[in-house]
Amino acid sequence: MLTARLVDHIWSTRKADSLSGLKLMQAEIIGGGTDAGQRIIVVDIISAGIGDRVIVTTGSSARRMLGNDDIPVDAVVVGIIDEDCDFE
Amino acid sequence: MLTARLVDHIWSTRKADSLSGLKLMQAEIIGGGTDAGQRIIVVDIISAGIGDRVIVTTGSSARRMLGNDDIPVDAVVVGIIDEDCDFE
Amino acid sequence: MLTARLVDHIWSTRKADSLSGLKLMQAEIIGGGTDAGQRIIVVDIISAGIGDRVIVTTGSSARRMLGNDDIPVDAVVVGIIDEDCDFE
Amino acid sequence: MLTARLVDHIWSTRKADSLSGLKLMQAEIIGGGTDAGQRIIVVDIISAGIGDRVIVTTGSSARRMLGNDDIPVDAVVVGIIDEDCDFE
Amino acid sequence: MLTARLVDHIWSTRKADSLSGLKLMQAEIIGGGTDAGQRIIVVDIISAGIGDRVIVTTGSSARRMLGNDDIPVDAVVVGIIDEDCDFE
Repeated sequence: MLTARLVDHIWSTRKADSLSGLKLMQAEIIGGGTDAGQRIIVVDIISAGIGDRVIVTTGSSARRMLGNDDIPVDAVVVGIIDEDCDFE
Repeated sequence: MLTARLVDHIWSTRKADSLSGLKLMQAEIIGGGTDAGQRIIVVDIISAGIGDRVIVTTGSSARRMLGNDDIPVDAVVVGIIDEDCDFE
Repeated sequence: MLTARLVDHIWSTRKADSLSGLKLMQAEIIGGGTDAGQRIIVVDIISAGIGDRVIVTTGSSARRMLGNDDIPVDAVVVGIIDEDCDFE
Repeated sequence: MLTARLVDHIWSTRKADSLSGLKLMQAEIIGGGTDAGQRIIVVDIISAGIGDRVIVTTGSSARRMLGNDDIPVDAVVVGIIDEDCDFE
Repeated sequence: MLTARLVDHIWSTRKADSLSGLKLMQAEIIGGGTDAGQRIIVVDIISAGIGDRVIVTTGSSARRMLGNDDIPVDAVVVGIIDEDCDFE
């Protein structure tokens, strides 16, 4: 899984019907390497907030988090890294 | 999901039969990181236009957007980022 | 989807039985970004030729192009970019 | 598969219910290339320890290691590289 | 598909039961681009040898090569590039 920091919401009025009601967030990849600093869009259903460091599952596995295999998402927050956890 | 800006149409007369009638667009990845600036081809079925910043779902999840698991595409626009949304 | 230019055939006498009869080509990724210039191997079933710029679908979606989910390929040509299409 | 070195545990109190009880570890990609040095999060169910060099399977194949296709993970340790094996 | 050169065996005594008996090899990605030089671990079931240049299928498609969708691997040799084939 990737690690990322949630940096903001992302607003998209015109979108797939199946995404309605899902919270979409901008996340910046952390953890070093050449991908660090890239912003991606993730779905959050565990009430993470801006500034949180999160664990992001990508690909088909992301759909497993939503319990609905028909939703077209490929990146979902599956955990919030504890604040006192040494990372990065 | 990736973020990208739609930069142009892409024309392909000879293509998979199952792609007939699908709008294919050139999209330039945004959001920073080393992938920024790379052009990819995406399918759009929500009437996005050139210049729009969009959210792109990739991989098997992209097929979920089309409601037909047999179409050989791996990148589909799932949302248009609102114009007044602060991004990039 | 990726874009690539077909640069040559690739010859592999010893290979998976299920690949027998499939045309394998060397393709060089185009479209800018850090992946540009990388050579990958793609399957072509729409009679593309050396020099053609093509649209390549990757991952599980590539298998959808072959109509046989058991063939171990992850990159297939799904379209040939029109010669007069402005790209790259 | 990727190769990585396990560098630490990762603690996430608030996470997907289906991840409860799974050991999550921070792993640093090794093996050269531009991905080397990037930290990812992996699941370990074969009792690997900090400092071990491991083989990591990613994507949908990672779920096969857990014997439960509904768990939203995309990176799992599938083997520990023998200490006397020449690598990196 | 990726292209790689097989550089050595990889030894892993403690590993997933389902990997027992599968030949695991270290492969170095070739073909130019930023991924060139990265070492990955691949499964070989077509008797490739050290030094061979091979075609590697990744992701869920790799499992198709093994005829068993439950084995947690994401990179499998699907062909050996002929020695007299001009590549790289």
